Amino acid sequence: MESKVTMIKGGEFLIKGAEPETVFTPEEYSEERQMLREAIRDFINKEIEPLKEAFDSKEGTKLAPEKLEKLGELGFLAISVPEESGGMGCDIKTDLAASEVMSDSYSFSQTLGVQRGLGVNTILFYGTDQQKAKYLDGILTGKLKCSYCLTEPNAGSDANSGKTHATLSDDQKHYILNGQKMWITNAGFADVFSVFCKIEDDENLSCLLVEKDWGVQLGVEENKLGIHGSSTRQVFFENVKVPVENLLGERNKGFKIAMNALNMGRLMIGVAGSAISKRAFHLGVQYANQRVQFKQTIASFGAIQEKIAKMGINIYALESGWNRLGGDMDVLYSQFIDTGTPPLKAKQQVAQEFAAECAIIKVFGSEIEQFVVDEALQIHGGMGFSGESEISMHYRNIRGNRIYEGTNEINRLVIPGTILKYALKGKLPLMQAAMQAFQEVQSGNNTPIDPDLPLKEFAVGFLEHCKKSILLISGLAMQKFQQEIQEEQEVLSRLADMIIQIYMMESVLLRTLKGNGQHQEIKEAISVVFMNEATDKIKIALKEVAYKAADKEMVQKTIAATDQLMQLPVVDIIVLRRKIASHFIQENQYKI
Amino acid sequence: MESKVTMIKGGEFLIKGAEPETVFTPEEYSEERQMLREAIRDFINKEIEPLKEAFDSKEGTKLAPEKLEKLGELGFLAISVPEESGGMGCDIKTDLAASEVMSDSYSFSQTLGVQRGLGVNTILFYGTDQQKAKYLDGILTGKLKCSYCLTEPNAGSDANSGKTHATLSDDQKHYILNGQKMWITNAGFADVFSVFCKIEDDENLSCLLVEKDWGVQLGVEENKLGIHGSSTRQVFFENVKVPVENLLGERNKGFKIAMNALNMGRLMIGVAGSAISKRAFHLGVQYANQRVQFKQTIASFGAIQEKIAKMGINIYALESGWNRLGGDMDVLYSQFIDTGTPPLKAKQQVAQEFAAECAIIKVFGSEIEQFVVDEALQIHGGMGFSGESEISMHYRNIRGNRIYEGTNEINRLVIPGTILKYALKGKLPLMQAAMQAFQEVQSGNNTPIDPDLPLKEFAVGFLEHCKKSILLISGLAMQKFQQEIQEEQEVLSRLADMIIQIYMMESVLLRTLKGNGQHQEIKEAISVVFMNEATDKIKIALKEVAYKAADKEMVQKTIAATDQLMQLPVVDIIVLRRKIASHFIQENQYKI
Repeated sequence: MESKVTMIKGGEFLIKGAEPETVFTPEEYSEERQMLREAIRDFINKEIEPLKEAFDSKEGTKLAPEKLEKLGELGFLAISVPEESGGMGCDIKTDLAASEVMSDSYSFSQTLGVQRGLGVNTILFYGTDQQKAKYLDGILTGKLKCSYCLTEPNAGSDANSGKTHATLSDDQKHYILNGQKMWITNAGFADVFSVFCKIEDDENLSCLLVEKDWGVQLGVEENKLGIHGSSTRQVFFENVKVPVENLLGERNKGFKIAMNALNMGRLMIGVAGSAISKRAFHLGVQYANQRVQFKQTIASFGAIQEKIAKMGINIYALESGWNRLGGDMDVLYSQFIDTGTPPLKAKQQVAQEFAAECAIIKVFGSEIEQFVVDEALQIHGGMGFSGESEISMHYRNIRGNRIYEGTNEINRLVIPGTILKYALKGKLPLMQAAMQAFQEVQSGNNTPIDPDLPLKEFAVGFLEHCKKSILLISGLAMQKFQQEIQEEQEVLSRLADMIIQIYMMESVLLRTLKGNGQHQEIKEAISVVFMNEATDKIKIALKEVAYKAADKEMVQKTIAATDQLMQLPVVDIIVLRRKIASHFIQENQYKI
Repeated sequence: MESKVTMIKGGEFLIKGAEPETVFTPEEYSEERQMLREAIRDFINKEIEPLKEAFDSKEGTKLAPEKLEKLGELGFLAISVPEESGGMGCDIKTDLAASEVMSDSYSFSQTLGVQRGLGVNTILFYGTDQQKAKYLDGILTGKLKCSYCLTEPNAGSDANSGKTHATLSDDQKHYILNGQKMWITNAGFADVFSVFCKIEDDENLSCLLVEKDWGVQLGVEENKLGIHGSSTRQVFFENVKVPVENLLGERNKGFKIAMNALNMGRLMIGVAGSAISKRAFHLGVQYANQRVQFKQTIASFGAIQEKIAKMGINIYALESGWNRLGGDMDVLYSQFIDTGTPPLKAKQQVAQEFAAECAIIKVFGSEIEQFVVDEALQIHGGMGFSGESEISMHYRNIRGNRIYEGTNEINRLVIPGTILKYALKGKLPLMQAAMQAFQEVQSGNNTPIDPDLPLKEFAVGFLEHCKKSILLISGLAMQKFQQEIQEEQEVLSRLADMIIQIYMMESVLLRTLKGNGQHQEIKEAISVVFMNEATDKIKIALKEVAYKAADKEMVQKTIAATDQLMQLPVVDIIVLRRKIASHFIQENQYKI
């Protein structure tokens, strides 16, 4: 069935409409997917929850290996791994749905994330048969613990500038590895390290699989702001002998391995953001329902209800976004398979194709997570600042998520960067779409969507209008800066802001319009409020780009036209938020 | 001189214009004020800086008492205390300027804040001669350490609901005190506790001065998210005998003491926010100037420059706001003195009069501090998440500032609440001003200010237009909800958002227009960008209130009119931010 759908392309959402029928939503989780989630939840409840305090201290770094093995024995490290490679063979949307539950496991989630995302996937996608025979089974069952060594003291965002270096031994049988890596998760107990380095005089990175026993040296456990139970160390290589057959993928092409791993890694951070947001939401709304001041629960106050609504709305959006993306990835995967691409190659290509969308989910997810955790802490009042409150632990734990896997600043550049690259390659008719938007706007037909239309019809037209506005402004920016747009980081960041908002807005609306779940009225309220808030953000970003990219007259024309295009019906947002809040207050958790 | 200025009223800025000549700005610090700041800075550099790590652990709670005494010996606990009471007799603006420096002292600043603000002031303002004779000198010199006991497990925001209770002894010579207090700063080493409790069957709080030795029991040091070196404990009273002469102020009127202390306390939190923002800014810009990626310092990237500019702009705004308020308070103080009010009474009344402005500085200051510290941490990348980085300590330390001294949610209600109260009392012609705004807007004369005017003329007109817009919408809200507006927390919060922004915008513009400092061009750039950002925020808040308070037709009219009124010239904000950033990057700190 799925393969008959028109071929999906990364970045395409910006220039094309989508139908509710084409998106995957959390309402559609199959029974198996739910059972898998529950099985993982059971594991965490039994094995991790009782150790919550330990996983907020360095003690957790000692407990993690055994827990990883237990989880591996249950097969949960191999959910997305094809059956023929020893996995469950689940599709991507199931993998994401499972990851969300796994991420709700305090600092143990870091251990899991590296093992599943970076450990399993790099060897699965790039390993030779021999390498897989030697390592894969151990990694999938958790017996071999993985670590991923990319960052160095002087190579963070600029990963390719690392100084770790390997030379071929005289007998050509080994690489002699020297160097230093930093912020390495799982380092304290890892058996296999994927180490990025430059070989001989190569310009680009390669990746070596290095076993601990070959002489890998470790620094002490780092003190971090949070995730204290996750092992993070420096890793040192001093003339470590690595057999040449442990080169992963091609020499000089390690950067691609690193970047490809990052795409899925970014998506997973967004999904983890969804998990922790829900956890924090639960803590916040529970506290609000139970804390009494001025003779009533604080949940009865408008100022608290507003917080609960805003948190709930944004979690709904985040959830809509990553589930949609997972669904789209699965569709493209099927299409690749149908056109003869081998399964593992197809998975790689899917992640690469959706690089922009993965970055969108990473940025939006980690920022919503920050927002939700912060607001949930605020609801706790003085108790939120207590080191004994769980919410204060999450507040510390999550702060890295806007930094890891590419800072959100880097990811903001990746979003329009990827889309522009697709356009330049002729993959995506972006310039044509921008030109068309320009002509349509110039022709003066910018009548706002009829505010009295039902949500479904309104949404279709409104999304089109928003996209037209964003395309128009993107076109002006591309015209003004041409190739130099790469240097205009602020312009790119504002384009990213707009693209993120439109992607999420569309995801929210399509999900709600698909309408196959409960609480339809609440979902519509959520969608309307989100549409309002996202539009405000788009307008502000658009204005900054317009001021930069066009002359005064054109700015005024553009702003006037896009203001018209993006005109929303007058609705009482405060009343809608109260309605949304009252739903969640009654549920006493994020449930919709 | 100052006393000849027209009498200033709290909240009046909302309905009246102001001239640059009337505001006090940091550019005008006298030599004495500077010297005082430097003397305090020297003390901190010598006594506190070397113990920075200790003040991030419970060790700090043991070091604090001795440091407090040393600082007391130098007279720094008595800066604003009248000379006749044993102090330096400085005016409020000097007290604030000194407090800013004192707040840049890690968790020791908490110890200082309670001693100076709550300890000194409550006894100074409300103590009997006998009480002052017994305690004041010790408190001012730091020999007697103070603690302020208001919060209880079930009485946080709802302070008046506390259960701590006192009964008169049979011989009427003592109060017998029983109860439990929570989150008590300085508790671990305090000698004198100001304890709020209800006496007998009283409905309202009273305040007792309780000596440690009379049987005060302490809980253990609390674990907190941050400020680990600040002593925070529970305090228990079990039949503690307090001599009746240790009642502070009048029986049943303790709530007024508590609230009055809070006004200055709120202002001081905003000022502390200014201090820590500057410190974080310094850490962030220094790191950006030193960290090299992609073969250049990261300070050379637009995405980082944008952060530096945004941080700098907001610190400038915060600094403009609290200095202005300090100046206004001094003017009103002089006016009170000139009209025969005794000095201490005058100080109390000043703090009370400016309750809304104090809340504005508290909310804006603590939120800007959060923003700046977060961005400075983000600039640090991976290092920002390291527990060894100073910035990560500030990130933990400051999180309470949006919770203490009234949560920011409570303070947002206080802002319009105070102004409405003044209006109802006939102190402030708010309704008349709102009515006039309504009539003017209805008459259709809403032409935007000529964008080609020089900044000075533009600003005067633009501020007037913004205020007119805010008054218009406030009027609509008051008309719609009447007395019930107290229940409309979301509406009040949005009014607060607008009032905060207009107060800060005006403070920024007046300071820049006064123009008696260096770097005038940078200050103008800062002002223009701030004006743009503040206007966006005002518009969003205004829209929510309009949607709630008016019918559809009126909403559309209102939005259209206010959009016209608040129309800003087209300027390249990105270029202005780069210009601002380049100034600060060169200074390598917040200096302007």
